[in-house]
Amino acid sequence: MEKIKVGIIGATGYAGAELVRLLASHPVAEVVAVSSVSYEGQKFSDVYPHFIGINDTVLQSADEVIEKSEVIFASLPHGLSEPLAEQCIAKGKLLIDLGADFRMYSAEAYAKWYKREYSHPELHKLAVYSLPELYRDKTVGAKIIGNPGCYPTSISLGCAPALRHGLVETDGVIIDSKSGVTGAGRGLSQTTHYPDNNEAFSAYKAGEHRHTPEIEQVLSDIAGQDMTVTFVPHLLPVNRGIESTVYLKLKDGVTEDEVRCAYEKAYSKEKFVRVLPKGSYANIKNVRCTNYCDISLHFDMRARRLIVCAVIDNMVKGAAGQAIQNMNLYFGLPEDTGLCMVAPAF
Amino acid sequence: MEKIKVGIIGATGYAGAELVRLLASHPVAEVVAVSSVSYEGQKFSDVYPHFIGINDTVLQSADEVIEKSEVIFASLPHGLSEPLAEQCIAKGKLLIDLGADFRMYSAEAYAKWYKREYSHPELHKLAVYSLPELYRDKTVGAKIIGNPGCYPTSISLGCAPALRHGLVETDGVIIDSKSGVTGAGRGLSQTTHYPDNNEAFSAYKAGEHRHTPEIEQVLSDIAGQDMTVTFVPHLLPVNRGIESTVYLKLKDGVTEDEVRCAYEKAYSKEKFVRVLPKGSYANIKNVRCTNYCDISLHFDMRARRLIVCAVIDNMVKGAAGQAIQNMNLYFGLPEDTGLCMVAPAF
Amino acid sequence: MEKIKVGIIGATGYAGAELVRLLASHPVAEVVAVSSVSYEGQKFSDVYPHFIGINDTVLQSADEVIEKSEVIFASLPHGLSEPLAEQCIAKGKLLIDLGADFRMYSAEAYAKWYKREYSHPELHKLAVYSLPELYRDKTVGAKIIGNPGCYPTSISLGCAPALRHGLVETDGVIIDSKSGVTGAGRGLSQTTHYPDNNEAFSAYKAGEHRHTPEIEQVLSDIAGQDMTVTFVPHLLPVNRGIESTVYLKLKDGVTEDEVRCAYEKAYSKEKFVRVLPKGSYANIKNVRCTNYCDISLHFDMRARRLIVCAVIDNMVKGAAGQAIQNMNLYFGLPEDTGLCMVAPAF
Amino acid sequence: MEKIKVGIIGATGYAGAELVRLLASHPVAEVVAVSSVSYEGQKFSDVYPHFIGINDTVLQSADEVIEKSEVIFASLPHGLSEPLAEQCIAKGKLLIDLGADFRMYSAEAYAKWYKREYSHPELHKLAVYSLPELYRDKTVGAKIIGNPGCYPTSISLGCAPALRHGLVETDGVIIDSKSGVTGAGRGLSQTTHYPDNNEAFSAYKAGEHRHTPEIEQVLSDIAGQDMTVTFVPHLLPVNRGIESTVYLKLKDGVTEDEVRCAYEKAYSKEKFVRVLPKGSYANIKNVRCTNYCDISLHFDMRARRLIVCAVIDNMVKGAAGQAIQNMNLYFGLPEDTGLCMVAPAF
Repeated sequence: MEKIKVGIIGATGYAGAELVRLLASHPVAEVVAVSSVSYEGQKFSDVYPHFIGINDTVLQSADEVIEKSEVIFASLPHGLSEPLAEQCIAKGKLLIDLGADFRMYSAEAYAKWYKREYSHPELHKLAVYSLPELYRDKTVGAKIIGNPGCYPTSISLGCAPALRHGLVETDGVIIDSKSGVTGAGRGLSQTTHYPDNNEAFSAYKAGEHRHTPEIEQVLSDIAGQDMTVTFVPHLLPVNRGIESTVYLKLKDGVTEDEVRCAYEKAYSKEKFVRVLPKGSYANIKNVRCTNYCDISLHFDMRARRLIVCAVIDNMVKGAAGQAIQNMNLYFGLPEDTGLCMVAPAF
Repeated sequence: MEKIKVGIIGATGYAGAELVRLLASHPVAEVVAVSSVSYEGQKFSDVYPHFIGINDTVLQSADEVIEKSEVIFASLPHGLSEPLAEQCIAKGKLLIDLGADFRMYSAEAYAKWYKREYSHPELHKLAVYSLPELYRDKTVGAKIIGNPGCYPTSISLGCAPALRHGLVETDGVIIDSKSGVTGAGRGLSQTTHYPDNNEAFSAYKAGEHRHTPEIEQVLSDIAGQDMTVTFVPHLLPVNRGIESTVYLKLKDGVTEDEVRCAYEKAYSKEKFVRVLPKGSYANIKNVRCTNYCDISLHFDMRARRLIVCAVIDNMVKGAAGQAIQNMNLYFGLPEDTGLCMVAPAF
Repeated sequence: MEKIKVGIIGATGYAGAELVRLLASHPVAEVVAVSSVSYEGQKFSDVYPHFIGINDTVLQSADEVIEKSEVIFASLPHGLSEPLAEQCIAKGKLLIDLGADFRMYSAEAYAKWYKREYSHPELHKLAVYSLPELYRDKTVGAKIIGNPGCYPTSISLGCAPALRHGLVETDGVIIDSKSGVTGAGRGLSQTTHYPDNNEAFSAYKAGEHRHTPEIEQVLSDIAGQDMTVTFVPHLLPVNRGIESTVYLKLKDGVTEDEVRCAYEKAYSKEKFVRVLPKGSYANIKNVRCTNYCDISLHFDMRARRLIVCAVIDNMVKGAAGQAIQNMNLYFGLPEDTGLCMVAPAF
Repeated sequence: MEKIKVGIIGATGYAGAELVRLLASHPVAEVVAVSSVSYEGQKFSDVYPHFIGINDTVLQSADEVIEKSEVIFASLPHGLSEPLAEQCIAKGKLLIDLGADFRMYSAEAYAKWYKREYSHPELHKLAVYSLPELYRDKTVGAKIIGNPGCYPTSISLGCAPALRHGLVETDGVIIDSKSGVTGAGRGLSQTTHYPDNNEAFSAYKAGEHRHTPEIEQVLSDIAGQDMTVTFVPHLLPVNRGIESTVYLKLKDGVTEDEVRCAYEKAYSKEKFVRVLPKGSYANIKNVRCTNYCDISLHFDMRARRLIVCAVIDNMVKGAAGQAIQNMNLYFGLPEDTGLCMVAPAF
């Protein structure tokens, strides 16, 4: 079988480099070209010495990457993927976008939260938002795949069964998320300077993070009605991992068993979603470097709250791994092709 | 001026050792005796070599400590402080208890959450729960001071102004807290084994942590009505620090300015509580090794939520520092005596 | 092709669990049984929840493991592998021992450093010490494979070319090594309690670590003459990784180019040893979760010193990965079978 | 007593900010002005929010700082302190320089290692290099105090007694040091970006670090003969702390007791140097946030090596704390004035 030719635009960012890393062991796909604006002309392994002897390709331009590849993964700041998408479609190539440009159904929501209008509104009709466990059916046949954000992935998977089955109220949802520092990217900032971030912890962008409309879009979609949530992210002094603790109000009469049962059923056939046994707590270490989303369910019956803890590796299920899962899905491969990693939990 | 003679029972636990550390630079108090069941007869600096040349005292029995001291700090597992309190009272000495035995107003609540009845119910009439910023007036004259728990300290200070002034609803309060590992104590466990806890993060005891009734007691007290809260603690891979993110529903018509104003006014004269300027986020690093509680206020007006972030050092304002503040208060000293530390924020 | 049936004795220790993890993606071998004295009868995934859905096997006895397997990996405290080896040989099965019992050529050296005599001296004639890059030829045909220690692996690979070609003096060798905490195992101790080890750093067992005789054995072997080295290990507050900085005296007249050339040549065909380009420094993050040993060469020509920095992942090339490499070698498979991981360097 | 008026130039770098922190609790000195090129006109607490309510001074120009102060601490990149020194001397004010400009006796060594000639050679006659425990006598009466570098402080104190008493050879000295990340300063770099530095470890500038000539200057001075050392620093994933492991050859006939005795005697009256009891290892956590230097002595008698482990907090004894110690010394105050901190070791 000839391998799928993959190109990566923005390969020297963390998500791009993680794609290169994961695809290195994909049995059916092969990275044939990588690009980087900042490092064009240098070897990929000059930027990331852990790739010495593994990927010593020279970084090229985005145009060259599109030319050489069947599937293009783009991992770029928002606003840069729309023009790329136009190019890809013109050349009949699939774009899997890890950025924010193709995640929103609503141009208004995008404009409001990203402070920018779509430059190519017509393209968005050709795009799907693809979180496989929830939107699998829509993905095949798309021209552009909008890969979900990291926070929304953990939250959507964590809430879907409860919302779909009407076990919880749709109002008053509180989401307290914590992300490892790779989520902030490879770019330098005082906040992510080692001594300023080590042994530190705080919230940021409380109630105003750009993933909020994406979270609300998915949850509303599942619940079948408009939802407004309160979302507060925090920066965790670890490299990888997102933990989202979601607080949901149980509807009257709903029991713990009913909820647990709905979750187990919803995900019983999902390779990448594990509903943990009663008493266990989802921990980022158990999904590190994997495409798993672990979910644990807890109940505060005094306040009739369902508390969902959902964890992912923000770089894998929250970015590169899920993008590969989407590629697998698109090409009719088993979704876990090249993604059967076990967490190095210690 | 003769120094206050201080004894510490349970000096080799983390809170006990932190008391020894902080009291080493107290100008008016002096540690005259320390005890430890596990290390009796050894030098304190054998257990904690950072004290070599600073405190090489030999660890004694609890009886000897009580004998030699005017003020006894006890830092023990729950259930062990009641008999000690009896001894102290018999000898006319002040007990400041860092454990849980003298925190609850209600014997029922204690029995329910700690699975144990009070052994000396009569003693509790002589005890006060003393979180100075909230209960200052009651402390002087007490025979036993119940020093607050770490989580409750951050949460109570973070919620008091909003509740006192009726700016928020008393129902539906969600508290998502994160604590550094010293909070779990010096005792060994798999969870706190370095490779199992490093680069890890998860919730624990969701909805069932023993600090819950203490939190509800204080918040109800302030609000003037019974409150039930949902409290979920998480273990943070840092040594010190608690961050509590509290989600409160704003009452109709209440504005951001009103809330901010209430907090600034409430704490304008408090040395140890800093209400941060708009746009700042409370970060555990800024209170590390200090007795400060930093509070930042955030508003999600789409959902009409007040989001309070409150941070403390769990070992200082959450334990030893607050205990010393209570001692200062009791003896009529300025509350910050010996507690004017600046955080080593990097 | 039928898969090689592998059993793991001591599967719940870190090295054992790492074997289970790595073998989960081995294309030609399969773990058919695992044992643990402490957790017999429980599921492996109860002890290590990151294996839920991946390996839910019930832990058995060592006897059962030997019965069911062709190859037995043992990861046990020293002294326990000799009786196992006897059993394996009696049943015609290969033992790959990750412990210390089959590493030493000299019964005297073993007795001196491990304070214990061999219980089955005759078995040692059937055993080889197998660090593949250095002793590949001896491995095939052995009945017992002694898998090298973690420190010795980094140091031997780091020194071999210089010693083999007589570029450095054999006396006055100084080895300053630093190891991540998984090297201390899964057992609890105050030193590895999170708050005691986080933000901490110190040497330990200076000049008296049990890996010393193994290091000297290999270096002497390569140099062709008896060597005595000074070896000081340190505990590094990270989970994984060993960095060894080795200080060697350049012989008169030897140039930097000559040394660099010898290293590049020595390892040019070795998949798992990377000699880094001039100016780079070997960093544990670049080999994390991989079987690589990265080596960087530095020269202090004022003092005529060759400074070698060699890094490995102590759990992989320093334990489980190298054991699998040995198994591959033994069975005539490409040595990198199942071992082509790329480091999650961030 | 009127307080000593202190000014800090470069107050927003880590060493400058640490000076502000430590001086906040100095009983006899008071920070009256602070400057920063990057943040002039802003409040110090805007840059470092842990100072809110503690130091809200507005950052001024260097000129203003010199004008208002009796003692000026400068913490600047090399080359910038010479012109400042000229100004200070002209105005009769003491300069304590935490940079590299006034550390070297030899203009040639400075030029060679710092790639820059002295701009004001005449000033250097008025300057002393002041590591109090070794050069106390020279400090009083100086016009400019060159505060030692962090690595040299740990190494000099660690080697002095052995060299002074001729217990070890002066050749073949190997120094393997490890420093926390604050040593690299507050400026951003890829190396100190959190995800690139966390769980990472490597050497850097092996044999070519700029502290080498300073180390050799002090050791030669003490030994009474020219010494060349091999010095390899490493970057440690912690905020604070330097550990130096120094390998020295024992002279023939010298015993362990003799060495231990020399160290204990040398430092018996030194408040800030602790020679640890036999069997203990110097650990950075035990000196964190303090002005201590802990030294442990180890012997590899098979190779006749003395192994010295010396630890300091690079920000305190390695920078700001020692600078204050120098100020105390200069003004005839007890050297530990304002410096009696106990390490928050957990």
